[in-house]
Amino acid sequence: MKKISPINWEKDKIVLIDQTALPQKLKFITCNNTKDVWQAIKQLKVRGAPLIGITAAYAVAQAAAAYKSADNICVVKKQLLRAIDYLETSRPTAVNLFWALERMRGVINNFRGSSRGRLKAVILTEAKRIFAEDKRLCAQMAGFGAKLIKSGDTILTHCNAGKLATGGVGTALGVIYKAKSQGKKIRVFATETRPLLQGARLTTWELSGDGVDVTLICDNMAASLMQKGKIDKVFVGADRIAANGDTANKIGTYSLAVLAKYHHIPFYVVAPTSTFDFSLSHGSKIPIEYRDEKEVKAIAGILTAPKNIRAYNPAFDLTTSELIRAIITEHGIISPPFAKTIKKLYAQKFRSSRNFS
Amino acid sequence: MKKISPINWEKDKIVLIDQTALPQKLKFITCNNTKDVWQAIKQLKVRGAPLIGITAAYAVAQAAAAYKSADNICVVKKQLLRAIDYLETSRPTAVNLFWALERMRGVINNFRGSSRGRLKAVILTEAKRIFAEDKRLCAQMAGFGAKLIKSGDTILTHCNAGKLATGGVGTALGVIYKAKSQGKKIRVFATETRPLLQGARLTTWELSGDGVDVTLICDNMAASLMQKGKIDKVFVGADRIAANGDTANKIGTYSLAVLAKYHHIPFYVVAPTSTFDFSLSHGSKIPIEYRDEKEVKAIAGILTAPKNIRAYNPAFDLTTSELIRAIITEHGIISPPFAKTIKKLYAQKFRSSRNFS
Repeated sequence: MKKISPINWEKDKIVLIDQTALPQKLKFITCNNTKDVWQAIKQLKVRGAPLIGITAAYAVAQAAAAYKSADNICVVKKQLLRAIDYLETSRPTAVNLFWALERMRGVINNFRGSSRGRLKAVILTEAKRIFAEDKRLCAQMAGFGAKLIKSGDTILTHCNAGKLATGGVGTALGVIYKAKSQGKKIRVFATETRPLLQGARLTTWELSGDGVDVTLICDNMAASLMQKGKIDKVFVGADRIAANGDTANKIGTYSLAVLAKYHHIPFYVVAPTSTFDFSLSHGSKIPIEYRDEKEVKAIAGILTAPKNIRAYNPAFDLTTSELIRAIITEHGIISPPFAKTIKKLYAQKFRSSRNFS
Repeated sequence: MKKISPINWEKDKIVLIDQTALPQKLKFITCNNTKDVWQAIKQLKVRGAPLIGITAAYAVAQAAAAYKSADNICVVKKQLLRAIDYLETSRPTAVNLFWALERMRGVINNFRGSSRGRLKAVILTEAKRIFAEDKRLCAQMAGFGAKLIKSGDTILTHCNAGKLATGGVGTALGVIYKAKSQGKKIRVFATETRPLLQGARLTTWELSGDGVDVTLICDNMAASLMQKGKIDKVFVGADRIAANGDTANKIGTYSLAVLAKYHHIPFYVVAPTSTFDFSLSHGSKIPIEYRDEKEVKAIAGILTAPKNIRAYNPAFDLTTSELIRAIITEHGIISPPFAKTIKKLYAQKFRSSRNFS
């Protein structure tokens, strides 16, 4: 299985695949400083909840590298914490961003030395660890999730939850890659995912590049396929999961979840525990990002609606937990009642992070 | 209320608004012969179930005008019937096309004279009658439908079922225009309607041009609005309605109907009796048009997906009757059980057409 690396650390520079240029161009962009990274995240040049977390972590390492050896370590730490605060303002919904930056904050706060070079080294080590961990978690999720797929299944997925969204094989798409590698015959329908077309541009590119049988549909065609009995399972990723299982994910996910429920099709969410926000009791507390209405009124820069029309553009919606058959994490498959099973997951995560440190 | 005429008969020429050029350009195209009309229908330069019927009727009148006075009337009639057969192949789903052409076929078959000029005159009279009738039916449907709208309602509509789709004020949008003219305060959300964006391009243009408060959304955002309690009612048009109430309409309609059901939002279909196919017991018998996959893989001619990817492109889907709260026709509002109430409508239609002749 070919691995496209959407992020690369090259001598204190962050080199990203510009995901807004795909599939027409495989173009790389270089981020030289925190502002560059902030903009790349904001403009969705880099996207996908786990990958945003990884990218932000590297941005802190990059910020640390910019200081001179002679700089006062207290001042450097203060300024790095400020850079973290700034990076947190790039996008509000995916919690992995905050989770990764919180880890970097911990590394900085816990650093007791006086060497600027040593501080940079521990920060970079932590960023690399987050990247490597995510790769491992993707493989673990893929392993658990693939058990849910039978040979002959037709799977519907939304947006892009693959190699371009993570440090590894992806979340929802990782499951598909794994099942395929096990010799299962699978067909995938990918929704185009308006307004920014991550499904049309990224998922079809990624899946077809790996030899997966994929067919593109418009978002509004999924229901008709379900009605005809052509969809066996739905797999999606997640941007933030509340303690009760309510899941924020790309706009259109909730729509598919309701449609799946109506047609008795299992709806699965695949996400690492870094996507869980154990502090939020319900999904209604998850902040939803609203983006520029131009994204809805234009496609590929071409105006599709009258110029002075109002448009509504939430980037995410909320899939309430009763619509979710199971959540696949690196610790295994979580089933309802989610309030209870997620509590257990939290304890497990806490144990494993203690074991780790 | 401003009336945009999407079709005009000008000295044996059919002048149409090119609906594929809207909203950027208000461009008119002239159809000089049957083939021009066939292509205009096929390419959706003219669209909307009732308007397709009207256009096809005029195409027959235009074909009749092309013959010389000296031409043998039997040959002319035969060739006109052949032109009708040809026009029927333009699009398969909207039944109004077949219904209007059947009326023209009747006029030709019943014509007992020998004058080519007289034949053309009776055909043109019938085409004009279909146009005028549709205008009247739109007004009648609007009157009945507006009773279902309260001041303060927020209405969701899909595709374009307005002035650009009919000979009058429209079906679903006619209801909105009427309610507004009654002083009711209404807000409308219009889905963009991928792949061909009739909602983004036509509905927002038409509604805003008439001062209706309209907001554009992507198709996959409707569920989220419903979840937030922001939609009170859904109104759509129809391309063909079976005897049991199953309704074929623009792809995405079924999706909205399921979502409306889940959120306990009334879902209304607005269509004249010419949209009913009383000969089909169930919607599953309605032929669904599949269109070129390029429409899904590109927007405004710009490729949005990898070139060699497969795409699926049904132009319509089927809303099963249990999802429909009521159907608004020119004879009034029809409620479930539709098999029974549509049977009554059929009798009524038969009576009124006997009265008419």
